[in-house]
Amino acid sequence: MNDVSARRDVRMRGFPSRTSVDHVLRLVRELARPVSAESVGLAEAAGRVLTAEVVAPVAVPGFARAAMDGYALRGEETFGASDYNPLTFRLIGEAMPGRPFPGVVERGQAVRIMTGAPVPAGADAVAMAEYAQEGDGGTAVSITEAVPPGRHVGQVGEDIEGGQVLLRPGRVLRPQDVGVLASVGLATVPVVRRPSIRLVITGDELLPPGSMPGGAHIVDSNSVMLEGLVRRDGGIALRDPIVPDRREAVEAAILDPRGDLVLVSGGSSVGMEDHAPLVVAERGELLVHGVAMRPSSPAGMGRLGDRLVFLLPGNPVSCLCAYDFFAGPAVRLLGGRSPEWPHRQVRARLARKIASAVGRVDYVRVRLTEAGVEPLAVSGASILSSTIRADGFVIVSQDSEGHAPGDEVLVYLYE
Amino acid sequence: MNDVSARRDVRMRGFPSRTSVDHVLRLVRELARPVSAESVGLAEAAGRVLTAEVVAPVAVPGFARAAMDGYALRGEETFGASDYNPLTFRLIGEAMPGRPFPGVVERGQAVRIMTGAPVPAGADAVAMAEYAQEGDGGTAVSITEAVPPGRHVGQVGEDIEGGQVLLRPGRVLRPQDVGVLASVGLATVPVVRRPSIRLVITGDELLPPGSMPGGAHIVDSNSVMLEGLVRRDGGIALRDPIVPDRREAVEAAILDPRGDLVLVSGGSSVGMEDHAPLVVAERGELLVHGVAMRPSSPAGMGRLGDRLVFLLPGNPVSCLCAYDFFAGPAVRLLGGRSPEWPHRQVRARLARKIASAVGRVDYVRVRLTEAGVEPLAVSGASILSSTIRADGFVIVSQDSEGHAPGDEVLVYLYE
Repeated sequence: MNDVSARRDVRMRGFPSRTSVDHVLRLVRELARPVSAESVGLAEAAGRVLTAEVVAPVAVPGFARAAMDGYALRGEETFGASDYNPLTFRLIGEAMPGRPFPGVVERGQAVRIMTGAPVPAGADAVAMAEYAQEGDGGTAVSITEAVPPGRHVGQVGEDIEGGQVLLRPGRVLRPQDVGVLASVGLATVPVVRRPSIRLVITGDELLPPGSMPGGAHIVDSNSVMLEGLVRRDGGIALRDPIVPDRREAVEAAILDPRGDLVLVSGGSSVGMEDHAPLVVAERGELLVHGVAMRPSSPAGMGRLGDRLVFLLPGNPVSCLCAYDFFAGPAVRLLGGRSPEWPHRQVRARLARKIASAVGRVDYVRVRLTEAGVEPLAVSGASILSSTIRADGFVIVSQDSEGHAPGDEVLVYLYE
Repeated sequence: MNDVSARRDVRMRGFPSRTSVDHVLRLVRELARPVSAESVGLAEAAGRVLTAEVVAPVAVPGFARAAMDGYALRGEETFGASDYNPLTFRLIGEAMPGRPFPGVVERGQAVRIMTGAPVPAGADAVAMAEYAQEGDGGTAVSITEAVPPGRHVGQVGEDIEGGQVLLRPGRVLRPQDVGVLASVGLATVPVVRRPSIRLVITGDELLPPGSMPGGAHIVDSNSVMLEGLVRRDGGIALRDPIVPDRREAVEAAILDPRGDLVLVSGGSSVGMEDHAPLVVAERGELLVHGVAMRPSSPAGMGRLGDRLVFLLPGNPVSCLCAYDFFAGPAVRLLGGRSPEWPHRQVRARLARKIASAVGRVDYVRVRLTEAGVEPLAVSGASILSSTIRADGFVIVSQDSEGHAPGDEVLVYLYE
């Protein structure tokens, strides 16, 4: 018992003060900076974040092309054409996409042309097939509509001009952006590397995911949950074996140099098994320990050199909440993304009141029902099943004592 | 020229009639059915779609556990305790998470306990550390607050009861759902297989992505764009080399048995190089050819046996539009997901009018500006760069002649 008694001071000290959620968020925005860039092929580029301006090296299209199926000719020669005055041209060949007509269209001549084919030299317009009629065994075509020069011709650079700035740094590449990059001849694109997020899961009571719980042991649910959250936020999770509740083991795991950011699950509080805050304080800087919120009040944040460390409570709802409030924005910022909430949001009226306390942010799981927004009665930080029954959550701000039935609230949807 | 003349009929026949967008969507919803199930490990489960009900094989927690740091004891023995009347218990050991106290707590005894540790036999409540003071060299503890039996004890099954239905088929698994699956001892979960979507990119004018455009050739942008869209919708894109505009080559590519669904890009119209609709009509069923919309009117849809084939116009904006309207919902339905638009949507007022025509759906690229929603002036189906300048699009319904400035419209955001 002596060893345990010696650790009493640690356990009993409590949180000296709790940091406001806003202050933690300011720290996150100040300290989380994008990681380095890498070059990726176009097939992997959608959804990644651009690090440099992209300038078009060439024009698109690089040649004048037909915008309609029809007949390439000299537009001015069609003036006066109508149903009552068809004008006849000699048909000298055809131009297909990728298979241009090799000659020159002279006066009185036309070339059958398909959409996307290069408009042959000499021609400057395309008469639509709908207003044309071939004859003489395919050697002539009569046109019944006048087309001014340029009509139905896509000019060089009409989509993209050479030298044009296409996309700017910070752009989250859309599928069509990648199409544009391909169309100007680019094969790779510089993007923010996916930040690697190391998960340090601590707890003597934990069995690895995939185990059956038994005896005094429960299964670690936080690692698989955090893996999904990190992936949602554009990071890559690195998961190691579960770390026992011993100071040396926790210290070794936290100081391991792998990863751009470290998420420690469990042992974040002020109990005698809560080694993580002490390790961060002694080996780096413990910037936050204890946050004015519920759940997740034992959350913390610090840094070891340039690397941010988030201390997430082991209780699974607290872990989810602390990740989404603080670690998620950091992961997204490391990946060059927006720190804003990624959740879809809806406004709806409360069916029942939500009680809170001034000075504390509350994260309230809710259901969306016919009657409105129903806060879930079960609010314990250990009740992970509440987050699967809930449709989302409501955040009650630090300045608020809660909301009355009928109040409109913003619901962040779990999806 | 004779060969070309023989094909004139095909080119000139035009679309006999155009199918309404709503009708195509009804066909998609009727015909696109989820593909088979597979079993995946928890680390891959987030975001996947459940195919079977999940029932909890065990209760969580499986033992009564401390919900606070403090002292496990018999609650009734604390009645009457207060600051003025501390009650003293003999401290006989400690219970830590994963390291239970092996004995029984008898009358007058207490065990130091940490949150998450099993409550020892004999004890039925936890007195919080804040209202306790150890003494006698750690062999006694005095308690200053009464705790009724059950207080600060998480009962067996308080999170999840054994036999409880946790999740139902069709659920898109959230990160926390996967946590719950881990916590009840599951290692794998049955989910809808990711549908494999085969891309058939046709066109003699096309060079593969990563090439520099030159001469009469342009670079295929649709494949990389479609890969990103298919991934967004939960599918896996299979891309083969570009298919030349020859009937046999297009037929072989379309009939290739790989893939749960086929997307054909290019050659979808009624021109002489447009082999795809003929192949589908002759070897399967061409359900739709020509849609009452702009762009994408040459889009089509059919089936070969049970497999759906979408004919996407080669023009990149039309390709994007036809994918998002028709193929995207099919890909999502094949993967067990919602066919609804995946885009984030906002309502805003038009800064300038949008003209349309009754009988046709319009897909209008727009920007969100200070002045409101600005339709982009450039609307050509070949101008892919319009989709990178745009913030999203507005859909003008078939019944509408367009919208006046100041009208509120729904903008689907590209993101």
